[in-house]
Amino acid sequence: MARPSGRMPDQMRTISFERGVSKHAEGSCLVKFGDTHVLCTASLEERVPGWMRNTGRGWVTAEYGMLPRSTGDRMRREAASGKQGGRTLEIQRLIGRSMRAVVDLEALGERQITIDCDVLQADGGTRTASITGGWIALHDCLDWMHQRQMASKTRVLRDHVAAISCGIYRGTAVTDLDYAEDSEAETDANFVMTGAGGIVEIQGTGEGAPFSRAQFDMLFAQAESAIAQLVELQKQAIGA
Amino acid sequence: MARPSGRMPDQMRTISFERGVSKHAEGSCLVKFGDTHVLCTASLEERVPGWMRNTGRGWVTAEYGMLPRSTGDRMRREAASGKQGGRTLEIQRLIGRSMRAVVDLEALGERQITIDCDVLQADGGTRTASITGGWIALHDCLDWMHQRQMASKTRVLRDHVAAISCGIYRGTAVTDLDYAEDSEAETDANFVMTGAGGIVEIQGTGEGAPFSRAQFDMLFAQAESAIAQLVELQKQAIGA
Amino acid sequence: MARPSGRMPDQMRTISFERGVSKHAEGSCLVKFGDTHVLCTASLEERVPGWMRNTGRGWVTAEYGMLPRSTGDRMRREAASGKQGGRTLEIQRLIGRSMRAVVDLEALGERQITIDCDVLQADGGTRTASITGGWIALHDCLDWMHQRQMASKTRVLRDHVAAISCGIYRGTAVTDLDYAEDSEAETDANFVMTGAGGIVEIQGTGEGAPFSRAQFDMLFAQAESAIAQLVELQKQAIGA
Amino acid sequence: MARPSGRMPDQMRTISFERGVSKHAEGSCLVKFGDTHVLCTASLEERVPGWMRNTGRGWVTAEYGMLPRSTGDRMRREAASGKQGGRTLEIQRLIGRSMRAVVDLEALGERQITIDCDVLQADGGTRTASITGGWIALHDCLDWMHQRQMASKTRVLRDHVAAISCGIYRGTAVTDLDYAEDSEAETDANFVMTGAGGIVEIQGTGEGAPFSRAQFDMLFAQAESAIAQLVELQKQAIGA
Amino acid sequence: MARPSGRMPDQMRTISFERGVSKHAEGSCLVKFGDTHVLCTASLEERVPGWMRNTGRGWVTAEYGMLPRSTGDRMRREAASGKQGGRTLEIQRLIGRSMRAVVDLEALGERQITIDCDVLQADGGTRTASITGGWIALHDCLDWMHQRQMASKTRVLRDHVAAISCGIYRGTAVTDLDYAEDSEAETDANFVMTGAGGIVEIQGTGEGAPFSRAQFDMLFAQAESAIAQLVELQKQAIGA
Amino acid sequence: MARPSGRMPDQMRTISFERGVSKHAEGSCLVKFGDTHVLCTASLEERVPGWMRNTGRGWVTAEYGMLPRSTGDRMRREAASGKQGGRTLEIQRLIGRSMRAVVDLEALGERQITIDCDVLQADGGTRTASITGGWIALHDCLDWMHQRQMASKTRVLRDHVAAISCGIYRGTAVTDLDYAEDSEAETDANFVMTGAGGIVEIQGTGEGAPFSRAQFDMLFAQAESAIAQLVELQKQAIGA
Repeated sequence: MARPSGRMPDQMRTISFERGVSKHAEGSCLVKFGDTHVLCTASLEERVPGWMRNTGRGWVTAEYGMLPRSTGDRMRREAASGKQGGRTLEIQRLIGRSMRAVVDLEALGERQITIDCDVLQADGGTRTASITGGWIALHDCLDWMHQRQMASKTRVLRDHVAAISCGIYRGTAVTDLDYAEDSEAETDANFVMTGAGGIVEIQGTGEGAPFSRAQFDMLFAQAESAIAQLVELQKQAIGA
Repeated sequence: MARPSGRMPDQMRTISFERGVSKHAEGSCLVKFGDTHVLCTASLEERVPGWMRNTGRGWVTAEYGMLPRSTGDRMRREAASGKQGGRTLEIQRLIGRSMRAVVDLEALGERQITIDCDVLQADGGTRTASITGGWIALHDCLDWMHQRQMASKTRVLRDHVAAISCGIYRGTAVTDLDYAEDSEAETDANFVMTGAGGIVEIQGTGEGAPFSRAQFDMLFAQAESAIAQLVELQKQAIGA
Repeated sequence: MARPSGRMPDQMRTISFERGVSKHAEGSCLVKFGDTHVLCTASLEERVPGWMRNTGRGWVTAEYGMLPRSTGDRMRREAASGKQGGRTLEIQRLIGRSMRAVVDLEALGERQITIDCDVLQADGGTRTASITGGWIALHDCLDWMHQRQMASKTRVLRDHVAAISCGIYRGTAVTDLDYAEDSEAETDANFVMTGAGGIVEIQGTGEGAPFSRAQFDMLFAQAESAIAQLVELQKQAIGA
Repeated sequence: MARPSGRMPDQMRTISFERGVSKHAEGSCLVKFGDTHVLCTASLEERVPGWMRNTGRGWVTAEYGMLPRSTGDRMRREAASGKQGGRTLEIQRLIGRSMRAVVDLEALGERQITIDCDVLQADGGTRTASITGGWIALHDCLDWMHQRQMASKTRVLRDHVAAISCGIYRGTAVTDLDYAEDSEAETDANFVMTGAGGIVEIQGTGEGAPFSRAQFDMLFAQAESAIAQLVELQKQAIGA
Repeated sequence: MARPSGRMPDQMRTISFERGVSKHAEGSCLVKFGDTHVLCTASLEERVPGWMRNTGRGWVTAEYGMLPRSTGDRMRREAASGKQGGRTLEIQRLIGRSMRAVVDLEALGERQITIDCDVLQADGGTRTASITGGWIALHDCLDWMHQRQMASKTRVLRDHVAAISCGIYRGTAVTDLDYAEDSEAETDANFVMTGAGGIVEIQGTGEGAPFSRAQFDMLFAQAESAIAQLVELQKQAIGA
Repeated sequence: MARPSGRMPDQMRTISFERGVSKHAEGSCLVKFGDTHVLCTASLEERVPGWMRNTGRGWVTAEYGMLPRSTGDRMRREAASGKQGGRTLEIQRLIGRSMRAVVDLEALGERQITIDCDVLQADGGTRTASITGGWIALHDCLDWMHQRQMASKTRVLRDHVAAISCGIYRGTAVTDLDYAEDSEAETDANFVMTGAGGIVEIQGTGEGAPFSRAQFDMLFAQAESAIAQLVELQKQAIGA
């Protein structure tokens, strides 16, 4: 088996994080997983959703979008079609849960941070890139607050969080599927884990055919290794 | 640790399937997982979505809804609010994928079967009940077609599919969470598996805190056992 | 003339009320007019619409929906199409007005009761079944409040309300049209009346051709008799 | 009892029809019932709704709208709020049914006529004015077609149709309620009848309290007399 | 070159203003530019948009709509299609800006005036007619307030505002394009100016082909002359 | 008078074009006018809108969007709010008209090119940057077609098109307003012109107060000079 990109089965694409790409946002990061490019911003607001008011706790949420021509064929703009599709809603709920899993909402105080993940160019793995880059934007936003003594970054941000997709491509377990692999893979799983190795989310799907426990375990092992690398790269990016 | 319901950790609620509850639908089933009651219907249409026309293949899709007062507090009716929420879309996409995982779309021919899962009463686990009961409705729809020689049920329907939720409740792995447990569980995973034990979907979430590999393995083991029981109950229900 | 069901011209279908079908709702009733089955729930909320605040008066409103496969052909789910159709809005406004006609809104106090009528299976006469069964749900909700000394049921609920459709089918006035009759009837009228015989709503339509005063008077007479029977059945159902 | 306007109980407001008010429409009429002014246009299109294609039959439908400041307080523009309210949908369905009751859809041929009724100024009775004036627009549209030998007006248009509201105001049955009466009336019924005296629609509502059969009969008698006068005025207007 | 209407190049259509056409509105005007008829109303409300509260300043806004059959072919009703199109939004934003350009929002006080411009019949130039007639409605609303000593009309309303379209039709600069000219014109510009000759808005578009500075200057000169005439007609209309 | 940026009155910000930034689009350009950054893509589709079918002519259209945190305060995502605002629709209509003014739609053939302009970072002048950069994307898309012999670039693309804003800031006419100037300017005009100096669009607005003909002439003169420079920069960017 050869991967279309010539990568080894457990080899991720080239990963990069460019911080501070937005003049306005409190935190921002242009994350690249190969040809998948996502612009992540973290926006701080001094208000929380209605159902959280007067609880003393803050909130972290996320929104996700794809530019219409981030993909091979132009997609319809969701703003023009008048609603966000099920896939969009599913992904932004996942990003939000992933961020909240490593945030102490009480320590944040009654404020909201919104992580916007906008896909400038897509080549598979946009949700895992969004989570991994979104964490950098979140970190930088908390840094910004820390410098202004609005909150203690170390108390609010309890750990790293990063994500990777693994799948069975032509019978072999591979890490960080690109679009060519993803559209053909029998099985596809997304893993979200913390720096300490805790599991935040697992989403595995047997698209064409059910998969076995043994296959799942292989994907899991590769994901653990990849996420450890991503966390290392996040550390380098923030200069930790 | 005691479960609010007094059940053993790996004990499911009382499960029942009532077939043929709809005068109109080609297949139907009122499924109960304890106090969670879902009305599942399978509707056959001699047309497929536009993007599938002239492919010779059929399609199976699902829609999900909750009656406004199926829950403890009355929820806003989605028809009145003008859109289906992210949770609804996520669940109906999951049900659809689960059904398609055991259907041979070529053998079905260019037709669509829609599985409607409407929650009459909710007490946790509505998506797993929907999948498990939806399979019965699908089966009966294919039986209806089989009797009319429109398609071969045995060729179209390759296996059973059933689903269960497992989670960590007060430190213990428990099977088939009800609402009281679900709203408090640290970790919650939904498993969808076939009669042959193949994995169709795994969705695990560490709501409050990340979970460990060991915890996940426990949930997995309980789910395998529960799904085997559910498949057995499905067999009894259809008289197989 | 023979009715498709073999009923006598003034004979209603078999009517039944099953109370307490919802674990959550303050009042609930599964009403059946033959093969027309409607699940009615009454939900109490300690708030009123904005325009009623600080008036000291309460509000009773209704919502109506049909499950997609409650009908012979599957209908599109209104939540998916993004709006409630004109027929739905018309029916739920009618149910709401009918309930309010027998409620003392001042005695209710500044609270709202919502009657949800969801059609599980349709065979004509869903709006009349909804009103007749909705009244039971409303009664049981007020009973629930009475037991908790939140309001006096006898002061709030001034009378019964019930509804029936009558129409001219193949030249004969018939009571309680089923779908086979309804889709063919020249004239169709819905009557909503109180236990005391007061008229709450009359809606008569000459679908195919105008009708005469004499025809209308016949329908009216049959409706009065049928509603008296329905009120009697309501009394039995609540044990009055 | 004195009516706010000083009219006799069975006295309608001053009624007028101004034909040909639209440069573009095939038929048009500005109808006035006192201070209620409705602009009615009939638009002919050489196509029918999808579900009617290739049936050889035509269709007549209606749309209704109120200008935002046609009322005492400015209402929100429905185009801005993004949907037509239940009242609007109910009224336009009523107007459409009323027109179709006097049209031979086969004789019309596979074409659609849309009656648009836009309320320029409202003072009660907008739906009855819309039906009564809409008939003039419909007539003139059929006249236009007749002159072009597209259809036979006398075959397509079988009769007049007109409408009036009657109600119990301070204990007395009154005809053609204006806003001052309508907002206070205990009971309110709309009657739609043909030139031959056939009943097309009856919609009676006991807003505050149920009404009796005797009261209804009084309203009915006044309505019959008023509609006979309206039909006479229509005849004068079209020069028949 | 001959204009379809036989007008001279710099000749406007017959302009008329009918004041006080609405029983309910604080100010109203039916403006006619030839066969273009627009009903303008000014509605006073004792509240401002949320973002203006407690600023002590008022707001003037506008809404625009076309009746479905104001045009040669029936257009879809925007209330039915569920949204206002881009052209509608663009025009109503323009009308609002034009009105605000001559209003002292502080002198108005914390109130909102909404100018509704509803096109009863369209024959080109609906936006310029709306602005020119809208000013009359605005004036009369302020007069109404002045009489009630709610605000000083002379302080609030600083000047007249009127608008005209000019364009290049078959090579010649013409004033006040009607539909026949507008649909064929190479270039089309709308000018909004004050009584003192100040420019409020200029919108010029080279539909088919770019235009030159010299052409633009010709249009501008004609517009200045036409607007001076319109202001004169406004003065006559209000009896100034 | 000093501009906040220290620029001379007629000095544009630093302008740059980065071509080929999208792996998927037929043409793309990241255009920067100082801190205003817009990603423009051109997408070719072998179909035209319904109303253009079988005309043999093509179409060029545009869509515009702002990332939620492209601005100082986070804006609501239009996809989430369910509709595009009036400003968005107005801008994308302007971009589309500007592109079509320099395209021979017959020579294009029955195809559609969509120019998507997505603002990654905003600091005033996003619509003028979109037009100027959108032309580069359009050019590159036509180049792509030219290389594949699908169309003749030189026949389809008749000229350059570029745009600039000019305004009166603290009494002085300035070119290429940034956000600090724009939010304070008394007058603001956008000019769209071709390489040959033809005028495509002029949109001038006196926000706070009307402006004079002399002021407008100054803005015009500065715009002509700036657009000539922009066209020169476009030529350099495409290597012409």
